[in-house]
Amino acid sequence: MASKAPRSDFEFKPVSLKEFETVFPQLVDDLAQHCKQYAPPEDALKWYKDSLNHNTMGGKCNRGMSVVDTTSILLQRSLSKREFFHSATLGWLTELLQAFFLVSDDMMDSSQTRRGQPCWYKFPKVGMIAINDSFMLESSIYVLLRQHFNTHPSYASFLEVFHTTTFQTEIGQLCDLLTAPEDHVDLNQFSPKKHSFIVIYKTAYYSFYLPVALSLHYLSLATPQNLKQAQDILIPLGEYFQIQDDYLDAYGAPETIGKVGTDIMDNKCSWVINQALERASPTQREVLDECYGRKDAEKEARVKAVFRELEIEKAYLEYEDEFVRKIRDMIAKVDESEGLRKEVFESFLKKIYRRSK
Amino acid sequence: MASKAPRSDFEFKPVSLKEFETVFPQLVDDLAQHCKQYAPPEDALKWYKDSLNHNTMGGKCNRGMSVVDTTSILLQRSLSKREFFHSATLGWLTELLQAFFLVSDDMMDSSQTRRGQPCWYKFPKVGMIAINDSFMLESSIYVLLRQHFNTHPSYASFLEVFHTTTFQTEIGQLCDLLTAPEDHVDLNQFSPKKHSFIVIYKTAYYSFYLPVALSLHYLSLATPQNLKQAQDILIPLGEYFQIQDDYLDAYGAPETIGKVGTDIMDNKCSWVINQALERASPTQREVLDECYGRKDAEKEARVKAVFRELEIEKAYLEYEDEFVRKIRDMIAKVDESEGLRKEVFESFLKKIYRRSK
Ligand SMILES: [Mg+2]
Ligand SMILES: [Mg+2]
Ligand SMILES: [Mg+2]
Ligand SMILES: [Mg+2]
Ligand SMILES: [Mg+2]
Ligand SMILES: [Mg+2]
Repeated sequence: MASKAPRSDFEFKPVSLKEFETVFPQLVDDLAQHCKQYAPPEDALKWYKDSLNHNTMGGKCNRGMSVVDTTSILLQRSLSKREFFHSATLGWLTELLQAFFLVSDDMMDSSQTRRGQPCWYKFPKVGMIAINDSFMLESSIYVLLRQHFNTHPSYASFLEVFHTTTFQTEIGQLCDLLTAPEDHVDLNQFSPKKHSFIVIYKTAYYSFYLPVALSLHYLSLATPQNLKQAQDILIPLGEYFQIQDDYLDAYGAPETIGKVGTDIMDNKCSWVINQALERASPTQREVLDECYGRKDAEKEARVKAVFRELEIEKAYLEYEDEFVRKIRDMIAKVDESEGLRKEVFESFLKKIYRRSK
Repeated sequence: MASKAPRSDFEFKPVSLKEFETVFPQLVDDLAQHCKQYAPPEDALKWYKDSLNHNTMGGKCNRGMSVVDTTSILLQRSLSKREFFHSATLGWLTELLQAFFLVSDDMMDSSQTRRGQPCWYKFPKVGMIAINDSFMLESSIYVLLRQHFNTHPSYASFLEVFHTTTFQTEIGQLCDLLTAPEDHVDLNQFSPKKHSFIVIYKTAYYSFYLPVALSLHYLSLATPQNLKQAQDILIPLGEYFQIQDDYLDAYGAPETIGKVGTDIMDNKCSWVINQALERASPTQREVLDECYGRKDAEKEARVKAVFRELEIEKAYLEYEDEFVRKIRDMIAKVDESEGLRKEVFESFLKKIYRRSK
């Protein structure tokens, strides 16, 4: 069909959240259908569907939608119905992976709310059942992969990418939990190197590399060179994204970011505290040791004062300028000969550059 | 080699726990080696290894060892070093799957001890990190499968069997959690049908069917007929095993079973209470409604008195006789033409028949 052939005048249009969300109910049906072969009691089936809906829907879906967007950019045309459904399904699998991590992370962090509602485990009827619910969110990935991609030439690669990314995220999460326990502050545990490890493994792989890797495998464009180029750009991009997140937690306007930052009180190993530790005088270090990670507004204010003295905001803006220059340079050098496209990365960068929320 | 050819006079000798345990340190090394590519902080790597050792070693390993035993029975000879290592590795993967389930089940059940020690999450330094540790136990399965079986003709089947069994166990666990919450007793939730669903999905698939399915795939004997015969016998055997467990919890001698039964106080949907509910008069039912699932020794004693009145012990012995007659009959009818052997099932039955612990 002429309308689907590559056109040099193709203008990429990102998928909307609304379009992307139309696919999920179908997947919930597929999962319920799969369960029915086991003839589970009705309340268990209903519970599973409720957990799928509650924990997977309702987010911004940036990760999931980027599978669809990347696929359209790589094809340089709008997607057929079938291509849209398949790439959106892969997108929802990344959202299921994230749901698995978020449900359990909230328990490990004793968080209270998520997406403007109580955390799943905080619902009185749920409690610790949320652990098993998180398991089932993860398992759903493999049920759906089998249902929809069993005969795809990249089926084995899809499995491998999900296993690898899951393990990477779990090591990152472990390091985060060991480095910044909420109840025991030890700033000697922190370092820019550790921050980088945590951010790359806990966030960058599943949030940035995974969606593009899935799209490349889907289109049978996952050559070693393409995968390597994607990783070399997307992991730093993911790191930048998390550094923004850390920066906004301390410096963003609550009206804009939609929450009041709590990283200081929560003893988070954030980019901001690591920069401060690199720069602090012995006296300033004493203040940080005494006041960081305490649930005490006055102490939080003293930490913020040290941040101000050390001009961490300025350091951030410099980091950002420098980083964006370097990453633009890397993107400009992308070798497109095996079907990868600079535009994939430009689109990611555009979505997050100088974001204020 | 003559010594490895099938011999009609082969006498099967089960693997010992000691021999089986020799393999695990090697697997921990393999996993640590795999991690090192990510250059994790040392404390995270050490934590992961400690969790692997603490949570996977130290059990009876019946599930894991049955992969080795089944493989030897199917080959009708003792195993080569390589065959031993591979079948023991598959055995340890079932032990890792169980470790994943036990670490998390203890959290969901608020249990205090496991294998004579505090539960993993009960160690002060561990706490909720145990959730992520359980994830990493599960992920380890796929790392090791890839390292050791990537080129095996059944690699894809191994992945599928683990995914399917994991999901089945999780549905069983969900149903268990919904049916018998510790803090809300409602005996109307119980029924022999629900008991059967929970037991089959939560226990029988991973404990009985999985080890034999792995051995069949390993030997490329996993024909549809062999898998079906294995399932048709092993799922009832697994159900029988759990019914024994439920029976022993109420009637076993604490000195023999190594613990004091707590199913009555813990509101467990056990075979014993389900039999009692089937037989209870309205007056007896009232006692059960009032006294089951309460942390109160006097109420527990009243439940036990009703069990005695209803002769549940006699019902159990009748069930056992009847079940064993039927299952022996099924085993006798096994079609061995595609390489399956009755002796696989006889060996399982022999290990559990009339067990007192
Ligand atoms: Mg959190
Ligand atoms: Mg966290
Ligand atoms: Mg943040
Ligand atoms: Mg338990
Ligand atoms: Mg339990
Ligand atoms: Mg028991």
